[in-house]
Amino acid sequence: MTKKLILDLDTGIDDTLAIAYALGSSEVELIGITGTYGNVLLEQGIRNSLAVTDLLGHPEVKVYQGLPHASTTDSFNVKPISAFIHGENGIGNVDIPDSQRMPETESAIDFIIDAAKTFGQDLLYVPTGPLTNIAAALKKAPEIKDHMGNIVLMGGALTVCGNVSTWSEANISQDPDAADLLFRSGADATMIGLDVTLQTLLTYQETKQWRDLGTKAGNFLADVTDYYIKAYETTSPHLGGCGLHDPLAVGVAVDPTLVTTLPINMQVDVEGPTRGRTIGDNTRLNDPNKTMQVAVQVDANRFLKEFMFRIGGLAAQQV
Amino acid sequence: MTKKLILDLDTGIDDTLAIAYALGSSEVELIGITGTYGNVLLEQGIRNSLAVTDLLGHPEVKVYQGLPHASTTDSFNVKPISAFIHGENGIGNVDIPDSQRMPETESAIDFIIDAAKTFGQDLLYVPTGPLTNIAAALKKAPEIKDHMGNIVLMGGALTVCGNVSTWSEANISQDPDAADLLFRSGADATMIGLDVTLQTLLTYQETKQWRDLGTKAGNFLADVTDYYIKAYETTSPHLGGCGLHDPLAVGVAVDPTLVTTLPINMQVDVEGPTRGRTIGDNTRLNDPNKTMQVAVQVDANRFLKEFMFRIGGLAAQQV
Repeated sequence: MTKKLILDLDTGIDDTLAIAYALGSSEVELIGITGTYGNVLLEQGIRNSLAVTDLLGHPEVKVYQGLPHASTTDSFNVKPISAFIHGENGIGNVDIPDSQRMPETESAIDFIIDAAKTFGQDLLYVPTGPLTNIAAALKKAPEIKDHMGNIVLMGGALTVCGNVSTWSEANISQDPDAADLLFRSGADATMIGLDVTLQTLLTYQETKQWRDLGTKAGNFLADVTDYYIKAYETTSPHLGGCGLHDPLAVGVAVDPTLVTTLPINMQVDVEGPTRGRTIGDNTRLNDPNKTMQVAVQVDANRFLKEFMFRIGGLAAQQV
Repeated sequence: MTKKLILDLDTGIDDTLAIAYALGSSEVELIGITGTYGNVLLEQGIRNSLAVTDLLGHPEVKVYQGLPHASTTDSFNVKPISAFIHGENGIGNVDIPDSQRMPETESAIDFIIDAAKTFGQDLLYVPTGPLTNIAAALKKAPEIKDHMGNIVLMGGALTVCGNVSTWSEANISQDPDAADLLFRSGADATMIGLDVTLQTLLTYQETKQWRDLGTKAGNFLADVTDYYIKAYETTSPHLGGCGLHDPLAVGVAVDPTLVTTLPINMQVDVEGPTRGRTIGDNTRLNDPNKTMQVAVQVDANRFLKEFMFRIGGLAAQQV
C-alpha cells in the first residue's frame, strides 16, 4: 500500500527540494504540508508551499497552518543567516506566481492528529523545521505516539558540530523544548541530522542538468538551488557544495536503507550552556527499548542518484 | 604472535581491574605500565601500579614515570569527586604492601616511542587516563603515528553526556589539548567512551565470586571493587552497578569484536564553553580516510563473561 506522507516545512530552498523529492516518489502520497516557521516566517512558508506545489503540477496537495513560534517564546523573527542562505522570500529570491489557493481551515495540529488516527502505521510524518507542531499534537493527543508510523525528522547533530553553535543545529535550536518532548515521548522517530546531511552534497553540475531540461520546473529548481549553493560557498566553503538536508529526510522516509542508524534513546539539552544540543539520554542508556534511531552513515552516492532521478523525472513533466 | 601491550594508567580502581584483565589475557604480553595523573597523583598511581602487579603475581611488569600534569597547566590536584570514587589512595582505601621495586629510569615518553619503533603494528597502547603522555610522545617523535598499532583509549563521550560536565568526560577534561592532538594526528585510534563503558556494569554479585575464591588476589579485587560500586550508588544510582571503563578498553584491545564502532574523524573542543567535548571534526567529515573508530555499541553480556573468566582465572592463582 502507498504510504501517506505529511511534510512539516518552513519552506525555504531545501524544503522545496523535499517537496519535489516527495512528489517524484511513487511509493508515497503527499497528503498534506503542515506549515512551520524557521527559514522564513510561518506565513511566507505557507505562501511558498502553495506556490511551489502549483508550479510542480500538484495543486491537489493541501497546506495547513501550524504554530508561528515556539511555545516558550512570544514571537519569531527570521535570523539574518537564514535570510542569507534561503533568500528574503525563502526561495532564493526567485519570483514565482502566488497560488490562487488558500491554506486549509483545519489547523496543522488537528490535521496531524487526525491523520495519525486514520492512517496509523501507514503514515509517514517528516518534519524538516522546528518540532513545534508535532510537540503540540503530542500534548493535545498523547495517544497518537503509539499509533502513528515513523517520524523522520531533519534536525540535530549527534556526532558532528552544530550549525548555529558548535553544539546546536538550527531546527532544534528554534524550539529545544518541543524537540525534547518528542525525543522523550516514546514515539518511533528517526533523526536525520547534520551527521549525514552534510555528507549529501549538490553542486552546479547537477543543477545544470535540471536547467538543461528546458522546463519551467527545471529552471525554477536550478535557480533556487544555485542561490543555495552560492550561499554555502560563503558559509561552508570546505564542503564543496550544498547540504541536501530536508530531501534526505524524505529520501529515508521512502527508503530507510539509504542510511545506517544507531538505535538510541535521545534527549535535547534544555538547560545550561548547551541548550539545544541533541544527545543520548544517559538515564535511558541501558533501557533495551530504543525509541529512536539516529542516522550516522549514509550511502551518499545512491541517495544522489535517487535524488536526481526522482526530481529530474518530476521536473521534466512540468513544461 | 602475542601482541605487546602498554597500559597508560592513573591507577585507581578500574585501572586496577584493567591490569588484572591484561594479566589474565594470554593473547597479550603486558610489557609495561606508563604512569599518568588523574584518579590520583602521578606518584600515587605509580606506587599503586607497582604494588598491584606484585600482588597479582607479576613483578616482571615494568612501570615508567610519565608527566605529572597537562602541558597547559603548572600542576595537578586530585578532584574531590575522584577521591570519592577511587578512595584517597586510589584503590578504595584498601591497604596493600608497597612494592620493593622502583619505577624505571627511562621516561614513559621514551619508552612509548621505543616500543612503537620496536614493535610497530604488534604494539597495543591502551591509555585509560589523560592523554598527556601519548601527546608528548607524538610531539617528540611524530613519525611513530604511522608505525604503531592501534591505540585503544578509554575516554570521551560522543553519543551520551559527559561525567564531569554534561559535555565532557573526566580523562579528556584533564587535558583536552593533548586529546585533540592525538585525535587530529592521523594515528589509528579507537575511542572507548562513556557511550559503551556505562553499558558494562559490575555488581556485588560478581565481586562475591572473587571473594569466594578465598585467595589474596580475589579478596583484594573484591574489596577495591566493592568500594567503587558503593561510590556509584551515590554518583549514578540509576545504573545499578559500576561502569567497567578501563577494563573495557583492554577488552577491546584484545578482542575488537566486543564493540561496534563508527569510523569518524574526531576532534576535541579546546576553545569555548564546551572545552573538553569529544565530537566529529566537521572539516574532515567527507574525508574518506577515517583515522578513528568510536565504539557506539557493546556486547555487554559477552564482555562481562570474558571479564569474569579472565580476572577470575588470574585471581584464583594468587594465594
